[in-house]
Amino acid sequence: MVNIAVAQSGGPTSAINASLAGILIEARKHAGIKNIFGFKNGIDGVLNEIIVNLGEIVDTEEKLELLKLTPSTALGSCRMKLPDSEENEDVCSKILGVFEKYEIDAFFYVGGNDSMDTVSKLSKYFKKIGKKIKVIGIPKTIDNDLCLTDHTPGFGSAAKYVATTVQEIIRDSEVYALDSVTIIEIMGRDAGWLTASTGVLKYNGETAPHLIYLPEMPFNILEFVNDVKTQQEDHKAVVIAVSEGLRFDNGDYVAEGIMSGAVDVFGHKYLAGLGKFLENVVKDKIGCKVRSIELNVMQRCASHIASMTDVEEALSIGAAGLAAAISGETGKMMSFNRLSNNPYKVAIETVDIDEVANKEKSFPHDWINAQGNGITDEAIEYFLPLIQGEVITPMKNGMPVHFKI
Amino acid sequence: MVNIAVAQSGGPTSAINASLAGILIEARKHAGIKNIFGFKNGIDGVLNEIIVNLGEIVDTEEKLELLKLTPSTALGSCRMKLPDSEENEDVCSKILGVFEKYEIDAFFYVGGNDSMDTVSKLSKYFKKIGKKIKVIGIPKTIDNDLCLTDHTPGFGSAAKYVATTVQEIIRDSEVYALDSVTIIEIMGRDAGWLTASTGVLKYNGETAPHLIYLPEMPFNILEFVNDVKTQQEDHKAVVIAVSEGLRFDNGDYVAEGIMSGAVDVFGHKYLAGLGKFLENVVKDKIGCKVRSIELNVMQRCASHIASMTDVEEALSIGAAGLAAAISGETGKMMSFNRLSNNPYKVAIETVDIDEVANKEKSFPHDWINAQGNGITDEAIEYFLPLIQGEVITPMKNGMPVHFKI
Repeated sequence: MVNIAVAQSGGPTSAINASLAGILIEARKHAGIKNIFGFKNGIDGVLNEIIVNLGEIVDTEEKLELLKLTPSTALGSCRMKLPDSEENEDVCSKILGVFEKYEIDAFFYVGGNDSMDTVSKLSKYFKKIGKKIKVIGIPKTIDNDLCLTDHTPGFGSAAKYVATTVQEIIRDSEVYALDSVTIIEIMGRDAGWLTASTGVLKYNGETAPHLIYLPEMPFNILEFVNDVKTQQEDHKAVVIAVSEGLRFDNGDYVAEGIMSGAVDVFGHKYLAGLGKFLENVVKDKIGCKVRSIELNVMQRCASHIASMTDVEEALSIGAAGLAAAISGETGKMMSFNRLSNNPYKVAIETVDIDEVANKEKSFPHDWINAQGNGITDEAIEYFLPLIQGEVITPMKNGMPVHFKI
Repeated sequence: MVNIAVAQSGGPTSAINASLAGILIEARKHAGIKNIFGFKNGIDGVLNEIIVNLGEIVDTEEKLELLKLTPSTALGSCRMKLPDSEENEDVCSKILGVFEKYEIDAFFYVGGNDSMDTVSKLSKYFKKIGKKIKVIGIPKTIDNDLCLTDHTPGFGSAAKYVATTVQEIIRDSEVYALDSVTIIEIMGRDAGWLTASTGVLKYNGETAPHLIYLPEMPFNILEFVNDVKTQQEDHKAVVIAVSEGLRFDNGDYVAEGIMSGAVDVFGHKYLAGLGKFLENVVKDKIGCKVRSIELNVMQRCASHIASMTDVEEALSIGAAGLAAAISGETGKMMSFNRLSNNPYKVAIETVDIDEVANKEKSFPHDWINAQGNGITDEAIEYFLPLIQGEVITPMKNGMPVHFKI
């Protein structure tokens, strides 16, 4: 190999830069690799030749450590999907032109399932026209919804942030001697992994969250109101975790379906979010003090409370991706295979990219309790190893230090 | 002194339990003190005799350390205001009955300006009827709006959480190569201290937040839109910090005034919050990608990223409160007097409770820039010492450990 290149894509996480650091660390071990390029803003940066020399930019151990612990994507991201190369070869051919110009022998794309689609299309195109350029996908997503991997880098840190924050919100919710309901809205679109992970708090003796609702189960407002009333018999301060992507039995999103009647002064449809909607349901049907909280983008960027396990694994899977390309693999996504829970052990393997691209892994139905409002002990055992260990965030003047390209 | 008692009141903070720990630590030094009682849910718990023996509950160094680092109020809180004792002595007399029953010689009330009103009324009543029971106020509020103290315990930790989180949101906002606006809504009702504190990020080289709007300046939508457009000339990702309590020139709250037209399916007035409203303004008048984020209760309970300076000061001011009562003071609030910025030095003093109760300290107008959308370097110098130092959060199974009574 002469040169290699990396790009990042999709939504940010707290561990995506650790995978980039892993590739840089592994590359040093291979004398044949001359340059490690980075393309800015994913495949968009490849097409527009917005290229940086990562070896020159990240040239000290200190910078490498900072990069590893900096949230979001140091190279920037995009949401671009490649056209199918069988229908339209122009884009793939343009990418090939750029790779050949910079003598790039291997390309690593760190991203979620849309990005794996790019890895699939590019690797197929290169094979078809007889080019030996390797294309490897490095998984990342806080949603944990990629197939054929036990979990995804970025998820553990998001889960650790969510568990820590929900625990602090529980303390906050308990202060007044009156009945209250706190609804916490958690990311994950159509996969409930991150919302479900709040269940780990029970392992440390918390009774909350008392109710957990996932998009994998159809949502019913009457059952929700009954569930809340039942919990209020035992708990003054009921805390509820809800996935942003809850849907009714007919498939409509709960937030969207109901709020469409409300219009603001500009005439916009009022999509205030699921939490706000459920807050109004409780206000209306139960009438107690109620608050909704959206954890928002902090779930994907709160690197100061990242999981050390997640950051180290993200680094290792990046490094393993480079090793796989050097051993001749292409059209693969790197994946975690969990060998045991206790002690926690994972192997890093490669899986066929076509088995992963454009697919989603849901939270398993048999890890949801019979009432559809909580998770099982088996699920807690799955989550626990992923949130272990704390990083030491580099600080300056009382604030975190971030790496910037 | 035979027995003393403590209660907590008002909204939670990350440092309010540190003040409780400070009282417990100081009490051990005075052999005359037999019992340290805690009343649950503030003055409400006094009236209803919901009492615990803190000396027995917090009986190890480990528990004391846990208490110090646990967010929210371990004793619970209330929002009750005492009737004026000159009009209605019944409540004060009932409190006296409880204090005499438990031989309580000094009462410490940790809270904000409503709680200082209780300290004022109780201490006056005891003086009037010739009782020697001491009543001392220990300040706390993330709003930093108490008079006659340089700052309030709890504020530094809230400011450190907000600075850290806004910095991470800045990283998150920069990922895509397109124009975007991110609006971050920060607590503080009618005082802009916490929102203003985001300005410290410039000290570490961040350009954002690019705009800061405080309730101390009347808000104008046209100027806001122009400000955003001006910032967009230099920055792809514009980040804006806004105080929840922004008001128009006529005194109306920005969020409330405008949204009153929108009604949801239950017929509720739509108070979606200021951030959501400004998000729609940007969508409508500028049309770029825009997101609003409410930092919500995490600002007052994210103790895992508390300021060590704040936690240590909260502890010291609690301890000093007990020492003041022993030396005979009553009807006082403990206060910080900043002696110098560099090196940072504060003295703990007592101030007359009537100079504090029911008053609010605004963010100074001469610390706001000429355009009314940012803060001055003098303000940054004020904020910086308060966010210094990190606590080490006790963790178990990857999650924080909290103290519970």
